[in-house]
Amino acid sequence: MAQKPSIPKGTRDFSPVEMAKRNYIFDTIRSVYALYGFQQIETPAMETLDTLLGKYGEEGDKLLFKVLNSGDYLSKVADDELNDRNSLRLASRICEKGLRYDLTVPFARYVVMHRDQLQLPFKRYQIQPVWRADRPQKGRYREFFQCDADVVGSDSLLNEVELMQIVDTVFTRFGVRVRILINNRKILTGIAEVIGAADKIVDITVAIDKLDKIGLENVNEELKSHGLNKDAIDKLQPIISLSGTNDEKLAVIKDVLKESETGLKGVEETKFILDTLKTVGLTNEISLDLTLARGLNYYTGAIFEVKALDTPMGSITGGGRYDNLTGIFGMPGLSGVGISFGADRIFDVLNTLDLYPKDAITGTQLLFINFGEKETEYCLPVVAKARQSGIRTEIFPDSSKMKKQMSYANAKSIPYVALVGENEMKEGKITLKDMTTGTQQMLTPEELITEINKL
Amino acid sequence: MAQKPSIPKGTRDFSPVEMAKRNYIFDTIRSVYALYGFQQIETPAMETLDTLLGKYGEEGDKLLFKVLNSGDYLSKVADDELNDRNSLRLASRICEKGLRYDLTVPFARYVVMHRDQLQLPFKRYQIQPVWRADRPQKGRYREFFQCDADVVGSDSLLNEVELMQIVDTVFTRFGVRVRILINNRKILTGIAEVIGAADKIVDITVAIDKLDKIGLENVNEELKSHGLNKDAIDKLQPIISLSGTNDEKLAVIKDVLKESETGLKGVEETKFILDTLKTVGLTNEISLDLTLARGLNYYTGAIFEVKALDTPMGSITGGGRYDNLTGIFGMPGLSGVGISFGADRIFDVLNTLDLYPKDAITGTQLLFINFGEKETEYCLPVVAKARQSGIRTEIFPDSSKMKKQMSYANAKSIPYVALVGENEMKEGKITLKDMTTGTQQMLTPEELITEINKL
Repeated sequence: MAQKPSIPKGTRDFSPVEMAKRNYIFDTIRSVYALYGFQQIETPAMETLDTLLGKYGEEGDKLLFKVLNSGDYLSKVADDELNDRNSLRLASRICEKGLRYDLTVPFARYVVMHRDQLQLPFKRYQIQPVWRADRPQKGRYREFFQCDADVVGSDSLLNEVELMQIVDTVFTRFGVRVRILINNRKILTGIAEVIGAADKIVDITVAIDKLDKIGLENVNEELKSHGLNKDAIDKLQPIISLSGTNDEKLAVIKDVLKESETGLKGVEETKFILDTLKTVGLTNEISLDLTLARGLNYYTGAIFEVKALDTPMGSITGGGRYDNLTGIFGMPGLSGVGISFGADRIFDVLNTLDLYPKDAITGTQLLFINFGEKETEYCLPVVAKARQSGIRTEIFPDSSKMKKQMSYANAKSIPYVALVGENEMKEGKITLKDMTTGTQQMLTPEELITEINKL
Repeated sequence: MAQKPSIPKGTRDFSPVEMAKRNYIFDTIRSVYALYGFQQIETPAMETLDTLLGKYGEEGDKLLFKVLNSGDYLSKVADDELNDRNSLRLASRICEKGLRYDLTVPFARYVVMHRDQLQLPFKRYQIQPVWRADRPQKGRYREFFQCDADVVGSDSLLNEVELMQIVDTVFTRFGVRVRILINNRKILTGIAEVIGAADKIVDITVAIDKLDKIGLENVNEELKSHGLNKDAIDKLQPIISLSGTNDEKLAVIKDVLKESETGLKGVEETKFILDTLKTVGLTNEISLDLTLARGLNYYTGAIFEVKALDTPMGSITGGGRYDNLTGIFGMPGLSGVGISFGADRIFDVLNTLDLYPKDAITGTQLLFINFGEKETEYCLPVVAKARQSGIRTEIFPDSSKMKKQMSYANAKSIPYVALVGENEMKEGKITLKDMTTGTQQMLTPEELITEINKL
């Protein structure tokens, strides 16, 4: 009967300490989202495969976890369908549901299903796990949390501005110094138009991104190797060597893109976002970065990414403006803009930089040592009072050896321990031991509560 | 391409208002659990079928959602296994994982897997969804949250006492008047022993429970119909007519059970729990109820349930003491005691009694109406200040018609709206409209913040 238990590969248990840290991260993001008027929704872990399939490309379809139909799932399957041994085709006959792969498609499905109850613009956030049958590797899991906020039903660039403020506020609260990178899909389209190489825009941004590492000459060589002609490469020179303030960069780009209506629209949008952010004031720097080119096919306007300054780590937050979120579900013309915080990476950054506030990860603050029945009877009303005053308090349930009880306090990093023996009971007091400094003092119950609450 | 989207039957989307209410419920429970030193853990949605199967009886096995193996899941299945068309057997060949069915088995698995890192007693809580392929019906879902706290590795009855305090504190914070019902499996065993009808204990408790409705005579008739002889029924009389205070009831039971060692142990345990609770003081009533007989096969000591007093609803919280939680995973001898709050039912009770605190379900507190570019430029720094002071604030992103913007405020139940036109800009003020009373006043930004924060 006994079996050595395990969990599916790519999944994780979260221990109390990890949970406290994750709660700190999610609670911080949640409260900032709320501060900006975003409302939380949740959708079911399982969606119909009709909702999920075909939304993430062929590769994505393969990575969906499919849920076997309940009951006699074979009853409607014909013999030849079985004997075909076509795993993919059979799956569509024996599974109707799958686990959600991201939060965007369920959100689009939500908006369409509840369109009659929604007042647009709809500002929603959602913090839930998603599942992908990716090959597990360091930092990549089969179950992980996404942490998205989107506004749909408004074309206003104020939404972009507010999302940047949200990013700035969240990382300021975390104490993580970041650089926000911003670009605009329309600027990239404009560049491609101007140099007559619409299909090469990804190659171009990748090449430009190498400037610091390989130098201008090599960048130009690389562009040439991708089939760009001399004229195109010449036109790109001001963009490759782009530097200075955001305003200076925008002026150069505007000049290069003077022939492209779309490009100029991108410049104008970016200028509005950056100018407006100046009037509200950000703590962190935001820079225009033309090499930023995330998810080209999905995004249609502003795009942004966040990088931590004090520890090497990929993008820890990203997002952008997209069109037609809900078209696939029969509700066209709804534009939106969103961001997604990378919870796992932020978790690692805060660990590396040791930025978790002590209070956020302290569980129990005070442990009463259990010396026996009489002492417990004396302690219980004090324990109750401490809790009433908001102090997270435990009394060790068994009168175990002192050593075991102190180990318990240490294992749970409990900062204060209360000791009560004959002496204390006689004087109506409690000895409070500060586990960090080792100092002890004998206090009345009221003094003890004041002492702990003053921290 | 367009499809009318839906969600799997028995699952739910949670709207912003529902989420706010649920967060209020979970946050309240979470903070009380923490106050008593319980630590949160989370386990993966998917467990291996090895972990899940055989833990919930044959019926439970059928209700597990199984997840199809990724990739070519048929490759290792022989032809005859396919042609057998045995759904259950084939499932075990093409599925290795399932969705968790409750939080108890994953917790047991967690304890065994992490035994080396755990300091006992381990006080954990866990708030996560579980999935069951039950036939959906009113109030029964295929995805629902459980909200469990357990202490394992301690036999002390102080744990039972603290769980009762937790229940009392949680419902006091909710403002729901409840009665806590307590019983003890050992008392029920004792009764069965004394009357020589060990297999009839469920029939007996069911019959006794009908006393108020059908009267003593009919209860005795029913007992007789279940095969109890006259002697047994005679011995049961004091127990059927049990009334008075908990102490009075215990005295009667103690006398009836004087021949049963187990029964007397149950009386003693119950007396300790109730006496200790008297010294700490509960807000709600706790009563010994011998007709309480939940999950007999699972529980071994104290059992308890909670009923709301002011609205008819089944048990809204329950739990008890059990032995050998982890034996099935090869770690015998670990006793525990736990409770589980019924989140869906509590949600309904708070709705019925209209007990959600306004503040907990208010999202955005202040909306700035958007009258155009110039006005927006004037408003943005004020919006930023309001947020800095903690006020959840929005500015409508588009300069839409006033009517649309006011509908938005109403739909989101935003209590305050800020209006800024020529006049306000000239005077450096903002007109604040109280959406409940309809009154308006013209205020400086600082006055506006003070006004809203004073509520």
